[in-house]
Amino acid sequence: MTDQDLRVGVIGAGMMGSDHAARIHERLSGARLVAVGDPDAERADRAVRGVPEARAETDPLAVITASDVDAVVIASPGPAHEPLLLAAVERGIPVLCEKPLTPDPESALRVVRAEAAGGRKLVQVGFMRRFDPEYLRLKELLDAEEFGRTLLLHCAHRNPSAPPGFTTDMLITDSVVHEFDTTRWLLGRDLTAVSVRQQGTAPSTDAGVPQLVTIETGGGVLVDVEIFVNCGFGYQVRCEAVCEQGTALVGGDTGMRTHHAGRWGGGVTSDFRPRFRQAFDAEFQRWVRAARAGGIDGASAWDGYAAAAACEAGVTAQRTGQRIEIVLAERPELYA
Amino acid sequence: MTDQDLRVGVIGAGMMGSDHAARIHERLSGARLVAVGDPDAERADRAVRGVPEARAETDPLAVITASDVDAVVIASPGPAHEPLLLAAVERGIPVLCEKPLTPDPESALRVVRAEAAGGRKLVQVGFMRRFDPEYLRLKELLDAEEFGRTLLLHCAHRNPSAPPGFTTDMLITDSVVHEFDTTRWLLGRDLTAVSVRQQGTAPSTDAGVPQLVTIETGGGVLVDVEIFVNCGFGYQVRCEAVCEQGTALVGGDTGMRTHHAGRWGGGVTSDFRPRFRQAFDAEFQRWVRAARAGGIDGASAWDGYAAAAACEAGVTAQRTGQRIEIVLAERPELYA
Amino acid sequence: MTDQDLRVGVIGAGMMGSDHAARIHERLSGARLVAVGDPDAERADRAVRGVPEARAETDPLAVITASDVDAVVIASPGPAHEPLLLAAVERGIPVLCEKPLTPDPESALRVVRAEAAGGRKLVQVGFMRRFDPEYLRLKELLDAEEFGRTLLLHCAHRNPSAPPGFTTDMLITDSVVHEFDTTRWLLGRDLTAVSVRQQGTAPSTDAGVPQLVTIETGGGVLVDVEIFVNCGFGYQVRCEAVCEQGTALVGGDTGMRTHHAGRWGGGVTSDFRPRFRQAFDAEFQRWVRAARAGGIDGASAWDGYAAAAACEAGVTAQRTGQRIEIVLAERPELYA
Amino acid sequence: MTDQDLRVGVIGAGMMGSDHAARIHERLSGARLVAVGDPDAERADRAVRGVPEARAETDPLAVITASDVDAVVIASPGPAHEPLLLAAVERGIPVLCEKPLTPDPESALRVVRAEAAGGRKLVQVGFMRRFDPEYLRLKELLDAEEFGRTLLLHCAHRNPSAPPGFTTDMLITDSVVHEFDTTRWLLGRDLTAVSVRQQGTAPSTDAGVPQLVTIETGGGVLVDVEIFVNCGFGYQVRCEAVCEQGTALVGGDTGMRTHHAGRWGGGVTSDFRPRFRQAFDAEFQRWVRAARAGGIDGASAWDGYAAAAACEAGVTAQRTGQRIEIVLAERPELYA
Repeated sequence: MTDQDLRVGVIGAGMMGSDHAARIHERLSGARLVAVGDPDAERADRAVRGVPEARAETDPLAVITASDVDAVVIASPGPAHEPLLLAAVERGIPVLCEKPLTPDPESALRVVRAEAAGGRKLVQVGFMRRFDPEYLRLKELLDAEEFGRTLLLHCAHRNPSAPPGFTTDMLITDSVVHEFDTTRWLLGRDLTAVSVRQQGTAPSTDAGVPQLVTIETGGGVLVDVEIFVNCGFGYQVRCEAVCEQGTALVGGDTGMRTHHAGRWGGGVTSDFRPRFRQAFDAEFQRWVRAARAGGIDGASAWDGYAAAAACEAGVTAQRTGQRIEIVLAERPELYA
Repeated sequence: MTDQDLRVGVIGAGMMGSDHAARIHERLSGARLVAVGDPDAERADRAVRGVPEARAETDPLAVITASDVDAVVIASPGPAHEPLLLAAVERGIPVLCEKPLTPDPESALRVVRAEAAGGRKLVQVGFMRRFDPEYLRLKELLDAEEFGRTLLLHCAHRNPSAPPGFTTDMLITDSVVHEFDTTRWLLGRDLTAVSVRQQGTAPSTDAGVPQLVTIETGGGVLVDVEIFVNCGFGYQVRCEAVCEQGTALVGGDTGMRTHHAGRWGGGVTSDFRPRFRQAFDAEFQRWVRAARAGGIDGASAWDGYAAAAACEAGVTAQRTGQRIEIVLAERPELYA
Repeated sequence: MTDQDLRVGVIGAGMMGSDHAARIHERLSGARLVAVGDPDAERADRAVRGVPEARAETDPLAVITASDVDAVVIASPGPAHEPLLLAAVERGIPVLCEKPLTPDPESALRVVRAEAAGGRKLVQVGFMRRFDPEYLRLKELLDAEEFGRTLLLHCAHRNPSAPPGFTTDMLITDSVVHEFDTTRWLLGRDLTAVSVRQQGTAPSTDAGVPQLVTIETGGGVLVDVEIFVNCGFGYQVRCEAVCEQGTALVGGDTGMRTHHAGRWGGGVTSDFRPRFRQAFDAEFQRWVRAARAGGIDGASAWDGYAAAAACEAGVTAQRTGQRIEIVLAERPELYA
Repeated sequence: MTDQDLRVGVIGAGMMGSDHAARIHERLSGARLVAVGDPDAERADRAVRGVPEARAETDPLAVITASDVDAVVIASPGPAHEPLLLAAVERGIPVLCEKPLTPDPESALRVVRAEAAGGRKLVQVGFMRRFDPEYLRLKELLDAEEFGRTLLLHCAHRNPSAPPGFTTDMLITDSVVHEFDTTRWLLGRDLTAVSVRQQGTAPSTDAGVPQLVTIETGGGVLVDVEIFVNCGFGYQVRCEAVCEQGTALVGGDTGMRTHHAGRWGGGVTSDFRPRFRQAFDAEFQRWVRAARAGGIDGASAWDGYAAAAACEAGVTAQRTGQRIEIVLAERPELYA
């Protein structure tokens, strides 16, 4: 690894692409946004606004071939992926490609073969659940066989409402595709067959009703998935593993929850670092931004003084058993 | 704000300091670790290992005065803070200082006055709960008076076990100090008095038993805090706000939980971005590191192909109502 | 309804039968246990021990035909039910029959036709989930369409371990039979088809692995059931209804839990009577038993006095803002 | 104990008294309601309506002295209790007296001494939390020192809104009185002192704001109680025990919840009997009532037949791996 920041180009400036552009600019160490490519010039411009060192391009391929681009993020629609991926592989630069890799297995296989021919893994697919803390904890539990072998997975994938134009096919290709990958990753097994059932008899034209997908896997673990993109109440992605001696559920809104040995519940962090790691990261990231502008963005010296005054009173209260008043000096203008 | 990264020096290479050094190097955008200062040369060295552009110093003041240091993080013991803070204020560079600001109100006030004389807020105190997602959500709820005015706060602050040498005073100065700041911040009111009660009569010499601290505040909101640094079961920091029409609890291991209008429970995220924001950040951060080394660290092109094959079978299953087998091409060596 | 207690005979003195005999004797209003019939004389004797007015019989039919028996509970093995039911129907006395009514539809239909010929419903089947507070609350929510129409039910039925001799068939006939009835009752619809899937290919001979049962219903609501009688961790019967605008889960160990309108959670009781109804019933039932023996079984007059003394001190503390000591008179011997 | 039912008189036909009268008539084994006494003749009449064998009285003392009354329940206002209790003690019949025993310690002590002089415990005070399943489980855990010695109790006692005329004193005498008794019972220790704090300075005249009550106990365990009778959201009675190695919370709406050994959560029942005990009791109680009227009140023979038909199809589905339709015979009129 070099000391230099990775210079990243983002292709696609829609919701995902601009979100990723902001992520690279605002929250990542070791990376710099240098270009955003989108045929829609206005969208591309919007995505680099506020990032002086980044430029907008209307030709996505130009981003991939630019000499100042070390790696690309592909967040354009799936049908556009194949040529972009092949170009990046040819140039030999790393790619993080939002799912799907490509819309069908034939084109995906062409990408695989081009990459394999080059002999180096350059293409990563954006299956982000593999990085979710709850899913990671679940995988750890399954891998270690903490509750014995895994027997079943029950999944539910629910969106408050489907966007316009969301078709029945997309229930599978846009939504359940995550469960396909999650299942392979959690179990470390290939998928062998799939079935789909639905309420009523006629396929819905507006993706409105829930479907039940059953996945069979190489190791004999059955998986069922409720896919429901119009559930109304909110977004929920849930997976319950049923093992020989217990169950573990993630995505249930309360951290990973297990049933094991006569108990249900979850884990308690053992010290302040895991509990407040997110808070520390956010505090420091916001402080870095403020400090670059010459200031602070958090508790001030006055807040530190007020805490010290309360501590002094608290220790006296502790020693004497009395109620102790907390008296502060006059507050300087600066902290008004 | 300049385009350049903020060049940060860290003072103190103990647990906190080295954790922060790693944070700056590994996870923050716009900042670069340039120096770590600690009288213990070995500790300082260890904290910069793996960061080629950073140096170790044994004189903390040298970090503050170095011309290539734009801002400092102070994570040395509290009694050492005052001269360091005064030096940074004098040089006019931003500081993020781990609590306590200083060990007593007199010295804290000297820092406040030096900073006020300079006319610019440069010193931030590391009260990280102000950046914790649950506490932020609680503050939002209280500020908006979603459940009416706030009447009481019940807090509990529990550590599995106190480190050796943890004294009774430190229950207040090291632990409850967080509740002092959190209370001021959540309520936007100064603290006016404090009382402490304890089980039994003699003050414990080993900080072993829980104490009950009562805090009075300017606005008439009472606050009670259980401080228990030997609770055995894990780390827990909890705050329940009692308002006129409901309660809200954070730190209870299941996200913010409210009681309101005949219901208990929590919120559901409305789409995938808040649900998986942490996962996206982690995915991208790890990909950046891998890409800088020329590779990937996540789902491969083969995984993308396998998902595409499952999708194709899934759509057929959906359309036909049949069980469809998933057949994969031969797996290239590269993905073995 | 007469003023007299219902004189009940119980047939079958196994685990269920003796549990029911005790229930009638110890906790029910308006009923009296008069006979227990079981071919195993010792078991029958054991079940009436402590109930002076009840006798043991070895001929179950003798219980049904006894002139002092007003109604019978049948808790013998399923294959024995048909003749007992027909005898009770012929004599015209009410029966509460543990499930299954009979082991196959033909014999069940004979019972139905005999009863229908008599023109009066006399036979009740012991599907007790219809009386479970959580299931009742779920049915109420579904019937009122609080979250719109019901679309799916996800069920899990888990036992810590199967008893010896539990066969694969019994997964259906002994366990899933409850879900068959619960589904019909919750949805108010007949079942139209059923499918079963299992991990691996060969049917298990020891009922060891979980099976997935899919039930189709008249109204187009799909139901899936995980039946797992060796789950290890405990007993769990769970049902999640997925409706158009939300979900409701019962049997999840925390009361009914819903997801609706961006919130997950449960209900809070509105006053002390629903919260403590079980406590009041238990208190009174135990007091009745103690009072029949001339005494009490709960807080004594001394406890009442101690509470009054604490109240007096509490009111003084409230009025004065002071800490008030609680001093009790000497405790009489009787309360030692 | 005799074979006869206990003949119970209830004094006071207000909300509590009529609730208890119904309880005795509808749900208790071994007891019969014979009289309800209330100076308000209409209320007394209403309370015995539907209980042919019970009469209404306007003189409460007449209930206590009636020869056909074996035991009495006192649910009249506290100031009326003393003469009633003394009369019952003099007659030597058991009493279940709603709290308070009497309104002040002096009168309570007179009752205690009268009872002690008689040498037999006849008076039970209605502290029903001692019979609540969650509180019982908590007491069991504390008594067994499952998490080591008990160090603190944190309590909250919340009502949605205070009834008209509820005074500040009544926060203590009507509400916290339960915590006084619960504390003594849970800890097995007498209370030694009490303090009360409140938001703001002036005592509220309408019991509107929450108060914090601190109770000291003989064994050195501190107890704090939030009493808030206008909390708006619902009724909640909560108690968290902090022990040397863990905490246990009851009344939190999700069953008893513990924190212990790095885990939070609750228990899972081990078999169907504890899980469905309430359901069995309710099923049988309703069946008894229906059977006394010659019928049933639950799943019918037809429901039993429908379940048998589903089971037969289910077993076939299980054996064949096929989807099997469920076909029912024609439904007789009786089950329409």
